[in-house]
This record gives sequence, C-alpha cells and structure tokens, in this order.
Amino acid sequence: MTFPAPVSPLRFSRLLLTGAAGGLGRELRPRLKRYCDTLRLSDIADLGGASPGEEMQPVRLEDRSAVADLLKGVDAVVHLGGVSVETPFDPILQANIVGVFNLYEAARIHGVKRIVFASSNHVTGFYRQDEVIDTDAPMRPDGLYGVSKAFGENLSRFYFDRYGIETACLRIGSSFPEPKDRRMLATWMSFDDLERLVVACLTAPIVGHSVIYGISDNRTKWWDNTRAAHLGYVPQDSSEPFRAAVEARQPTLDLRDPAVIYQGGAFVRTGPLE
Amino acid sequence: MTFPAPVSPLRFSRLLLTGAAGGLGRELRPRLKRYCDTLRLSDIADLGGASPGEEMQPVRLEDRSAVADLLKGVDAVVHLGGVSVETPFDPILQANIVGVFNLYEAARIHGVKRIVFASSNHVTGFYRQDEVIDTDAPMRPDGLYGVSKAFGENLSRFYFDRYGIETACLRIGSSFPEPKDRRMLATWMSFDDLERLVVACLTAPIVGHSVIYGISDNRTKWWDNTRAAHLGYVPQDSSEPFRAAVEARQPTLDLRDPAVIYQGGAFVRTGPLE
Amino acid sequence: MTFPAPVSPLRFSRLLLTGAAGGLGRELRPRLKRYCDTLRLSDIADLGGASPGEEMQPVRLEDRSAVADLLKGVDAVVHLGGVSVETPFDPILQANIVGVFNLYEAARIHGVKRIVFASSNHVTGFYRQDEVIDTDAPMRPDGLYGVSKAFGENLSRFYFDRYGIETACLRIGSSFPEPKDRRMLATWMSFDDLERLVVACLTAPIVGHSVIYGISDNRTKWWDNTRAAHLGYVPQDSSEPFRAAVEARQPTLDLRDPAVIYQGGAFVRTGPLE
Amino acid sequence: MTFPAPVSPLRFSRLLLTGAAGGLGRELRPRLKRYCDTLRLSDIADLGGASPGEEMQPVRLEDRSAVADLLKGVDAVVHLGGVSVETPFDPILQANIVGVFNLYEAARIHGVKRIVFASSNHVTGFYRQDEVIDTDAPMRPDGLYGVSKAFGENLSRFYFDRYGIETACLRIGSSFPEPKDRRMLATWMSFDDLERLVVACLTAPIVGHSVIYGISDNRTKWWDNTRAAHLGYVPQDSSEPFRAAVEARQPTLDLRDPAVIYQGGAFVRTGPLE
Amino acid sequence: MTFPAPVSPLRFSRLLLTGAAGGLGRELRPRLKRYCDTLRLSDIADLGGASPGEEMQPVRLEDRSAVADLLKGVDAVVHLGGVSVETPFDPILQANIVGVFNLYEAARIHGVKRIVFASSNHVTGFYRQDEVIDTDAPMRPDGLYGVSKAFGENLSRFYFDRYGIETACLRIGSSFPEPKDRRMLATWMSFDDLERLVVACLTAPIVGHSVIYGISDNRTKWWDNTRAAHLGYVPQDSSEPFRAAVEARQPTLDLRDPAVIYQGGAFVRTGPLE
Amino acid sequence: MTFPAPVSPLRFSRLLLTGAAGGLGRELRPRLKRYCDTLRLSDIADLGGASPGEEMQPVRLEDRSAVADLLKGVDAVVHLGGVSVETPFDPILQANIVGVFNLYEAARIHGVKRIVFASSNHVTGFYRQDEVIDTDAPMRPDGLYGVSKAFGENLSRFYFDRYGIETACLRIGSSFPEPKDRRMLATWMSFDDLERLVVACLTAPIVGHSVIYGISDNRTKWWDNTRAAHLGYVPQDSSEPFRAAVEARQPTLDLRDPAVIYQGGAFVRTGPLE
Repeated sequence: MTFPAPVSPLRFSRLLLTGAAGGLGRELRPRLKRYCDTLRLSDIADLGGASPGEEMQPVRLEDRSAVADLLKGVDAVVHLGGVSVETPFDPILQANIVGVFNLYEAARIHGVKRIVFASSNHVTGFYRQDEVIDTDAPMRPDGLYGVSKAFGENLSRFYFDRYGIETACLRIGSSFPEPKDRRMLATWMSFDDLERLVVACLTAPIVGHSVIYGISDNRTKWWDNTRAAHLGYVPQDSSEPFRAAVEARQPTLDLRDPAVIYQGGAFVRTGPLE
Repeated sequence: MTFPAPVSPLRFSRLLLTGAAGGLGRELRPRLKRYCDTLRLSDIADLGGASPGEEMQPVRLEDRSAVADLLKGVDAVVHLGGVSVETPFDPILQANIVGVFNLYEAARIHGVKRIVFASSNHVTGFYRQDEVIDTDAPMRPDGLYGVSKAFGENLSRFYFDRYGIETACLRIGSSFPEPKDRRMLATWMSFDDLERLVVACLTAPIVGHSVIYGISDNRTKWWDNTRAAHLGYVPQDSSEPFRAAVEARQPTLDLRDPAVIYQGGAFVRTGPLE
Repeated sequence: MTFPAPVSPLRFSRLLLTGAAGGLGRELRPRLKRYCDTLRLSDIADLGGASPGEEMQPVRLEDRSAVADLLKGVDAVVHLGGVSVETPFDPILQANIVGVFNLYEAARIHGVKRIVFASSNHVTGFYRQDEVIDTDAPMRPDGLYGVSKAFGENLSRFYFDRYGIETACLRIGSSFPEPKDRRMLATWMSFDDLERLVVACLTAPIVGHSVIYGISDNRTKWWDNTRAAHLGYVPQDSSEPFRAAVEARQPTLDLRDPAVIYQGGAFVRTGPLE
Repeated sequence: MTFPAPVSPLRFSRLLLTGAAGGLGRELRPRLKRYCDTLRLSDIADLGGASPGEEMQPVRLEDRSAVADLLKGVDAVVHLGGVSVETPFDPILQANIVGVFNLYEAARIHGVKRIVFASSNHVTGFYRQDEVIDTDAPMRPDGLYGVSKAFGENLSRFYFDRYGIETACLRIGSSFPEPKDRRMLATWMSFDDLERLVVACLTAPIVGHSVIYGISDNRTKWWDNTRAAHLGYVPQDSSEPFRAAVEARQPTLDLRDPAVIYQGGAFVRTGPLE
Repeated sequence: MTFPAPVSPLRFSRLLLTGAAGGLGRELRPRLKRYCDTLRLSDIADLGGASPGEEMQPVRLEDRSAVADLLKGVDAVVHLGGVSVETPFDPILQANIVGVFNLYEAARIHGVKRIVFASSNHVTGFYRQDEVIDTDAPMRPDGLYGVSKAFGENLSRFYFDRYGIETACLRIGSSFPEPKDRRMLATWMSFDDLERLVVACLTAPIVGHSVIYGISDNRTKWWDNTRAAHLGYVPQDSSEPFRAAVEARQPTLDLRDPAVIYQGGAFVRTGPLE
Repeated sequence: MTFPAPVSPLRFSRLLLTGAAGGLGRELRPRLKRYCDTLRLSDIADLGGASPGEEMQPVRLEDRSAVADLLKGVDAVVHLGGVSVETPFDPILQANIVGVFNLYEAARIHGVKRIVFASSNHVTGFYRQDEVIDTDAPMRPDGLYGVSKAFGENLSRFYFDRYGIETACLRIGSSFPEPKDRRMLATWMSFDDLERLVVACLTAPIVGHSVIYGISDNRTKWWDNTRAAHLGYVPQDSSEPFRAAVEARQPTLDLRDPAVIYQGGAFVRTGPLE
C-alpha cells in the first residue's frame, strides 16, 4: 500500500469527529464544519439528522472492522469518543483501550496522518492542587479513566515514533458552559477556547506528538503549557468572571478532602471501591 | 487537644495582621478588613485608634506567651511583623527568629491553619541582576535580614510538613507608592498588587507550603513565579509608567557597584562591617 | 474490610510468583524460596512438580475471579506473568492489560501491600542508543508490548497513590544466561543480578512507587538509575567478560537499521505490519 | 592602559551601528539616533549621506586595524555587520569569525563595555518545529552561518568572563516588514519590536552575557525567553494579523520537507552541497 | 584591617575543632592532629588533658566575645559544636543560631577563611525514604534542630558571598561505630569516612560554599553527591557488612510509621509536642 | 556520488590519525595500529619513519585540497591535529577553525562516517573549580583556544544533524605521563585511559554526536559524564597514586589566583593581553 506524501493542510476534505453526540462533540460539530468539506460524525448515541456537509457513521469503538471503515477517506480525526468519566473497568477497557487501539490501527491502515486526541487532566490527577506541573511531568492518573487516557497517550506516542502518525493529546480540564465549582476556576476551558485549541492542533504546520493541557486563561493555574507553545494555542477566555458566583455557592472547603487536595478533584475518590 | 476540621474559607471570622503599623501594614489594614468580621492588629509601634471591627493586641514578637495569646481565636494570620531592614543581629534575632518561632508555636497550639508570611527577596539577594531564578532556586541571602527570612521560610516548611499549618511565603520585592530607583523597576509591587497577592494566598483553596515573589507585572523581571501559579496571583500593575521619571533621576549606574550587580541591591553592601 | 497494619518484612510467609514457568520465572523459583515459607507459583504453562514449600495455583491472568483467589493469603507478589514479546494486540490485551488490572484489584481486595512488577525497557524503547535517560524520562514505548507495560506502570502508580499498594517497576533489559548480541552488552542483566534486584525490592523498608532499569553493571549504559538508589540495588555482574565473543560474532552493524539506532533494538521493527 | 569606571548609561555619547546599510541596519539607523549624540555607521555597502549627528566609518570587518579604529571613542556597539545568510565558508569566515574577533579585540583595546550582537535563530536551527527550547538549550546550528553565529556567542561569552565586556546575543528570528510564510508566523519580529529589543539591551542596568530570541509576541512559539526576562524585552507586536494572508498563500505543507520539520526552515537544506 | 592573601594549605598552623568532647569530636581529635601544628579544642563538656600540640579553649558558643577570642590565630575551623539532637527551642537557639552567628563573625573579624560546618541530614529530613535527592533540593527540615542547621547553611552561604569565607556544609547522616538500625543502613558513615570527608574539605584547593551529604558507600542511598564531586570525597566503607545483624534485630517495619516513611527517621516524630 | 551503507565496524581498514607527532599522537600511534589494517598518519611536525601498516601523509590543516586528499579511503578519523595551547588568534584560526572545517568537508566528500575529535576542557574552562558540570552545560570557553574547540564541537554537531557524520567530542583534561600540579589531580587522564576512551568512541555501535570529558577515575571531579555513558568509557586509572608527590611540590595555593578559581587553570590568565 502506498500513500500520498503526508501533507499538513489548513482545511480538510474530510474530517472525522468521534464522540460527536457528547457534550463537547455537540459543541464542536458546527464549529469544525467550517474547516472541512465533509464532516464525518460518529457516536454510539443519537446524532440527530445530518446537516449539509455532514455524514453519519455510528460505530462502537471496540468493533475493529467498523472503526477501520470509519477512518477510510479521512484526512484527520478529532477523537472525543469513548468513556469520559470514572466507571467500572470493562466499559473503559472496551471504549478507551480497545477502541483507541482500533482507531490508531485504522489510521495506520488508511494513511491518516493527524489525530487530535481528547486525553484528560486525570492522567495527572494525583498531583496536588498546590503544585504546578508541566506537560513532561511523570503521569499520575487518578483512576481507571485516567489510566486509560494515559494508555491512549502512550499508544499514540508509539504510532508517531513508529509510523509518523501525528497526535496532539489534549489533557482537557473541565469544558462546560461555565465553571461549576471552585476547582473549575483552575480547570475550566470555555467552548470557544476548546475550538481554538482543536483548530490550532488541526492546522499547526507540524504537531509531532504533543501534549497540552486544555484550559482557558484562568487566574489560578496548575498546568504549565510552555513546552506546547509550538501548537499556537492562546486561550482568550477565563474563569474569572464566574468567580464571585462560584465562590458564593461554595464558600468553604474541607482541607482534609482528597478532592480539595488533589488536582483530579472528586475523581480521586472514585475508582474501585475501598 | 482537638481542633475542628481544617477549613479553607473565603471570608474569615478573625484575621490577625501583625506589623500593622508598618508601611505595608498601614496599607493592608483597611483592605483586609473587607475579608473578615474582626481584624486583630498588632505591632510594637502606635496603631492609632481601632475602627469598627478592629481589635488591638500589641505584643513584642519575642514574648512567647504574649504571642501565644495573640493567636487565640484567630482563623488566619498575615505576618508582616518584625524587622524589615538590615540591622545588627540582635534585633533581627529577637523579632525575626525568636518571634517567628513564637508565632508558629502559637499557631500550632491554637490550631491556626494558614499564615501569609512576609518573607523577602533578600532571601535570594546574592543572585545577579542578569540572571532569572525561580522559587526553587537555592537560597542565597544577602544579609542577616535575608538569613532571618530564610529561617522563617524553613521553619514554616517544617510546620507544614509536621503539623499541616499552611504558609505562603511572599518574597516581597519593593512595595512602595512608586518605584524609587532603577532597581525597583524590576522589584516594585504596587499596594493594589500587594493586596491581590495577600488575598489570593488567604483565599486559595489550598496553599500547602508555597513560595512566591511579590512583584507587579514589571517589564524587567528577575523572578519566575511559574511554580506558584496555583496561588492565583496575577498582578495588574506595572512599574513601567514610572520608568521615565526614575531613569531621569538615575541616568547612569556604576557597573562595579555590588548594588547594581546583585538582586539584593544596596542590601548586599550592608551586613556586618568589613 | 479491615487489614492488619501494613508491614515491611524481610522474610515472607507466602510469596506469589507469577509467570513461574517462563525463562525468568524458572530462575527465580528456587531463589525466591529462600525468602518465604511458602512460594505460590502460577503460570499457564506447565510448572512441573511442587517442591517442599511450594504450592501451585495456575490461572489465566484474564480470569478475574481466579486471579482474585490467587492473591488470597499472599504477602507480596513478584509478577512476571503475561506476554513478554511483541505479539498481536489481543494476547497482550488479555494478559498484560486485563491481567494486570485483575492482579491489582486482587491485591486491593486481599490487602496485599507490595508488588514487584516486571516491566520492560521497551517502555522507553524509542529513545536512541546514543542518549542516556533516567527513570523519569517520558515514556516512549517501542511496540504494543511496551505500551502494555506502560499501562502496568501507570496502573500501579494509581494503586499506590489511591490505595497505598507499593510497586517496584523493573524495566528489565535482557536477562539471559549471557548477552547474545552487541545490544545486550548494554542491556544484559545476569540471573544473579536479577535475584539481587527482585530481593532488594521485596525487602527494602519502603518502596512507594518506584521505577528502576534492570541491568548489570555493564560498561555501556543507556539508563541512569540514580533516582532509584533508595531501592539498594547494586549489580555485581557485567556483560564485559562476554564482549570479545559477542563482538566476534557481530563485527559490523548497519547504522541505518532502526534496531541499531533505537534502544528497543529489534522490537522497534515489529509492531503491526506496515 | 586604564579605563574609566564601567558605566551603564541610558543615553550614549557615541553609539556604533555596524551593518548599517543592511535590512535591519537601515531600520535601526534613525531609531538609534534618538539614544545617542553621535551615531557612528559602518558597512561595506553604500550608507548614503550622513544626517546630523551621524558619522560614517565604513570598514571591512576582516581588517583588524580598521576595526580597531572603528571602536575608538565608542560607548556601545550594535553589531549587525557580517554575512547574514548561508554562503560558502570563506565569506562567513572573514566577516563572521575573523570580523567578530576583530570587533571584540577592538572593544577590549578601547574599553568598550557593551555590545548588542545580532546572533541568529540558526544557532539552534536543527531543533524541530514541534519542540520548544529555552536559551540554555545546547546549540544545534543549521549551517555554516549558524555555526559562525555560535562562534560569536561563545567568543563574546569569553570576553565577558575574562574582560567584563557585556554582550546581549540576539537570536533574531525573521525581522521583515511582515511575515512572508507560515514559518515566519512563529519567527517574525516587527521592526518596532526589534527596536524595543535593541534598546532594552543597550539600556538595561546590567546585561552580563545574555542570550535572547528576537521574536514578536506571536501566537506560535518555539522559543522560551524566560531566562532572559532581566533584559526587559516585552514585545508589543504579533504575526497574528498577517496569518490569514500568509495561510492563503501557503495552504499546505509537505511534512517530509526538512524546512517544515526543523526550526531553521529552508536554511537546513542549504549548507555545503550534498 | 588587612589580612594576608587567602591561602589554601594542605597542612595548618592552627586548626580549631569545636564540639571536641562530643561523639564525633572525640573521634576527630587525634585524627586532625596529623594535619596541623596546633589543634585548638573547644567544648562545654570536659575535654580531658591536652596532648602535645593541643591547646584547650572551652567556650560557650553563645558568648560572642569568647567565640571571637576562640578564632584568633586560627587557619581553619571544624565546627562540630552545638546541639546535635532535637531539643526545645532555647538550647538550639543559643548554640546553633546565636552560636553559629558568633562563629562566623569571629571568622570575619580574624580573617579565618575556611570552615567545615557539621550540618545534618535533618535539613532535608522530610523527604521520603523512597525518593533520592541531590544537594540542591529545597530544604525540608524535620524539626527545630534541622531548622537550625538550615540556618547555619544559609548564614555560611551569606558569609561566602559577602566576605569570601569558604564553608563546606556536611549533612552528616549517622556517624557511629556501626549502624544501629535499618535506617542507618542508608545513612551510616564510618569514622574513617568521616575523617576522609573532613580532611577532603579542609585540603581541597577551593571549596567555595559547598553542600555534601556525609555517608559511607552504602548500598541503599537517598542522597546524590554528584554536585559535590569537586570536594574529592570518595567513601571507602559501607554499612553492608552490618546488614545481616541489623536486619536480624529489626525484621519488620510498620509502613505507617513516619520514622519509616521519612528520611529523618525518628526525628520527624519529635519537635514541639502535639 | 553514492556511498556504501554506513557501517559501524570494530576494526578498520584504514584509520587516520592527525596530530600524530604531538604528545598524544605519539602515544596513540602504536595503540591505534591494533585496530586497523592501515594507520594513516598526518602532522606538520616530523613523524619519523613509517612502521609496517603505517602510511604518512603530512598536510597543513588549512590546505583544503590537501585535507580532502587526506581523508580519501579512510574509514574513521582520530583528529588530534591543530593548535593545542593558547596562542594568538591567527594560528588558532588556521588550524582549529579553517582546518576543522576542511576536515569535515573532506569527510562529507569522501563519505567518512565517524570522527573522534579532540576537543578540550577549555571549552568550559570558565566554570569554577567548586562546581560540577555535565556535558550539556552551556559552553564557557576560557580563551581563544577554547573558543576554537567550541567551534569544532558546533561544526561537528551540524555535520551530524545535516549529513549523518558521527562525532565524539572528547573534552580532554590533562593527558600526560603523570599529573604535574594540584589542578591535574582533577583533570588528569592516563595514556591508557586515553586509549580506552578513543577506542570506545571508535567502536561503539552508534555515537551520534556525543560530548564526553576525558579524565581518569580521579578522586576529585568537576565533570559528570553520566549523559555519555552510552559510549562505554569506564576509566581504569586515577591520579590518586600521584597525590602525595604533587601536593608536596605545591603545598599552598593562592585563593585569589584565577588559575585556582576556574576550571581552565592557567589558561584563564592567558588570552589577548590586558
């Protein structure tokens, strides 16, 4: 099999968005459409009807041949699909481990050369909230979900070193309409900044294998993206306008609560039951 | 003795401000009142009359039992008290060494869980003005005053590791109404930024034991606060508007002068006489 | 469920050795017997007959309940089980991902507090042979096998941070009777040094979560174990006595061969077919 | 020979600008005039007529005695002279190696105490565009031009350590009226920012031997100037307003092209012919 | 006052040994005699009779003028004096803070140019026993004793930066006839190695301000002296021959005991009472 | 022009030794003969008669075409040629700058793939003798000679990054029959260790571009070769047996002497006259 020369475009013939029915997927769906002729959408949940320029291809990520088909004819992938919360191991295993392997195998087979991978801050959730880490700090996942995202980061590192498939791993903080609690004053990323981040990673001339934390320009920061400055992500939003309301709702914190101590927040209290 | 669960509040029942009659103390006094029901004030100099919500408790820091009383019923401390210039050893010993020990012992005895400690840039004053250091650089004090502040930082580190008492060590640059000389173009912190810094440290969900340089967003920087970004201090002021006036007053510098070479400025020329 | 206080012993009532029928397992079996009253052995391959003080409990690692039983009554585990070469994904998935998860869940359920985990140098196999890395260098696995070992390291990190189960991750180089090729002059670990390493990790007062490369005191080194010096592993053997014979068999190397360029050697050329 | 005390002024009696007829020299010529009584200009190309306060002293940099004369009576030097592109070795040798040696010898002889040296990003051009380096990263020049600039940086380091002559090495990215291609979105420095950078280095109280990358505040960054923050260079411009036009002209990039992979861009493809 | 040129000798006219009646002082007393014409001895405890070449000058370290007299005519100091265990603050304050200040002032006044200062591993005792630190790691003292030794290190740093008085800070582990417990297998230093270390620091051509951990070549290591290799200390002994006996006496450890978790051992449990 | 595949052999058909008539060249000449069929020798000084298996080809390094001829038919080069002491700039320029460029151009033209380059500790001679650096520390040359060796290191880095020509840069300390002074107790390398180092670099499977300090296993060390451990150089000798004699000859040192303060020793006092 031979592929055309790997090309870094600014606009794509066909982009694949997985997890398109999820919270972030629904936000990105109309926004990514602007960067491609065809936006292929996939999810296991209902995707609604296809708008012009959209095409639907729902697959289960653990279905290897369906995923292989999914990447056919695709220029680049924004992979939001999979489990995005702490659950028992089996769903995580299927979607985030088997599923991510299937995705990269499909990319290899079909010559897809760039993937924007929704990793998570929970890859490093067991660092403390009173320390600041950069993107090279050793992984300290805060649960099985975080461990599965670490798997995805390492697998994609291998596919870059071995096959030249570029991946930007986005360690997304908390992307919601607004920050919901005190922790999110540090971890929040607006939907507009999410778009900026994803588009920066899709259109950067070269991505190699990069790791970047997905946060807005918040006043409180635990994560230092200096080593990812080549990606050209400069957030424009901040959690600060929401501070007063958030603090009013949560005026005190218990300093013995692991969710207050560790960056992963409440995730560090889940995981298999003790 | 048992204490209630350590709680991180946004507003305090009773805050203690030591050194309340000093230059920075007088600035912070009305500002901190907004964050507490009662502001307890202490100094050895005249504190004037008590405003509503203020209470006076003047003590000498070297008086262990008086200091123990001082911290009774207090939620958190902003410790500006002590000697703040280079002097002979004995006053520094009493106020900044014995006094700081007394303060932490009192905090331990009364279950006070957070202290904002006015340390000083003179803890690292023997670095050169042509190098940039971060908050983890080995200490290089520029005089006995700087050595005493280093003592306070180390003592507070111990009280955190051993007793869980949180401290933010503020290595304050030069906090005055405006920068007075060329060096202060790098080291200046406005009073508004001082307030921002102190309040950030009082109200951050978790502080642990943190070190941060206290400067405004000046154009020239010797100190990199990246590792303290979790404190949420983002300065809003800058020495830049004062540059022209300062430079007009001090158009040349002697490159052989230790006060020009080292970050501590004129402090590096004091210390015990040669 | 409550467990007795976690204790760090020098000698064990019952040790579990998984992968006991493999190359390293057969070596360690008689050696580990000296450190315990009962040595429980497990593998999917034939284990031969039980010697005095041995007990057999063969399980498939992917069988969650069998693995749960396997760890019952065990003080500590030396986990060599699983796939130890590059294979298609499914066997690796079952043994090294599902299997390792099962092992840690079993350890959590039964209160086992220390695991010596046979990780692999292939976790970092895509570093070059002309660079020296330490145990904190970001992971760069050289194949699916390496990715699976990275999974095990991250999972065990989580089980330590969350449940206090200690793990020493041994990134074993090449443990054979003697080095077989030029690469192994750098990566070789004698069986005696393997024993020293495993025993050091079993009997160190405290292991926390540690990573260490498993090599003898070879003349050529790619891996710096300075950060693991607390484990007390000091190799006594070296590949040097084998150098002349090895070099005679392999007098030239092709500098364009990825197996010569990268630390993972021939593993970097395997992985899913191109 | 004795010199007056080394003084760090804000305004100079006589400044020397070499390379004054080149692209950057023509820009800086009127701007630097504002910071001195007399601006001495030198180049081997035509400098046009002298404006008031200018004096012309054209020399070939390889002419040792002429260069010695050139620095007589000079307070500080902005050294843009020499070859600024990849050429055969001999012109680079004469202008950038012999010439720079002549310049520093002249500075030593005449007691000139500060030099702003136009180094180049090509000193580190063989780093990849998907990595971010700081000013201490080991040099990786991308051609003979870059090697010659590395020579200048090392020579000036020696003249500082040995003779106290201060140098700011500006690793200039791409200083043109506007960015010409996608790479320059990362490397561009506006002429106004160039002036800010040069003036900051001329007027900083103390420079020692410093290295700083010369770029505007671009969205995409490969270079981290944190360690040079003492110089007080804060760029005010950005390549971002030019992005749309640049991307329209260069919508795709070939990811196999060394000029896309490495920071030095097309320079990495020149050098002695293969 | 003028002093003769600072000279680095191999043999001293007069050496001062403080703390000469303590455990380490009694060991070093006959050994140091070999390196000087006169060995001046000081302590507050009984020093016994003076041997030939010895002179006695007992002082209390908190007596400033007596300490000033003590350093008169001295070439170099080995300062073992002061409190060497965790006690209430006041004795530590007098001996280790006031006393060390007195010592350095006396050195400044009398032109003494090198001091070997017995610091302690307790300056960093709150690091964990499963981590390895080097001599630049931020201080984390484990008690008031450790805080006082940190004071001495910082004070001596100042006296070097300001007055050129050289100090080697020896962070002594556990120097006893033999290791007494499991922790000392990591921290032990034989008396012969203690002599090697002190003599290396006295006779190194240049010491500047250096920090080094005082341990033998033990199998288990928490401390990396790489940055102190210029001192030329290469230990010749090891705790290993004592391992079997030590382990027999202490076959199990409680992993919840702070003395097992932290490098400072039992010191971390002392400090002011909780 | 096409070359055969780059091959890393253990024994060479033809080795080139430049500077063969110098102090180190005369030592290496008989030793290197054992690793090749033909040893080509070059120098500008008298080489004496050719032994069997030797061939003479004396050239001036600044003669580009003669150097091009010199590398014809050569498998690898040990480049000791050039100026090895501080001299005026012109001889250094011709031999160490023009000459080294000629050498690498010749290597490129003739497909020579590995060069062992005699660099020097004087590349970093302005670090202090009380600090320990590794091979990545920024260059701080102590004279024009050191600057020229820095040029060679940077040029060879470029020829590796661009053309794949491997170089091991040996920052040789002091290689003499025995150490001559106190400084050489730190910097000395025996001739046997020199051979070990050169042979390790010639025969290592892959060298890339590496930097290593050339010293024996001396007790006092300023240089940390950890990052060069892949080269497999393990010194067997030490300056220690010579210590007593050396110290007897030089019992005191003047701590104000730059040659005592800086690693470069007396070189730091040479350079262009002040």
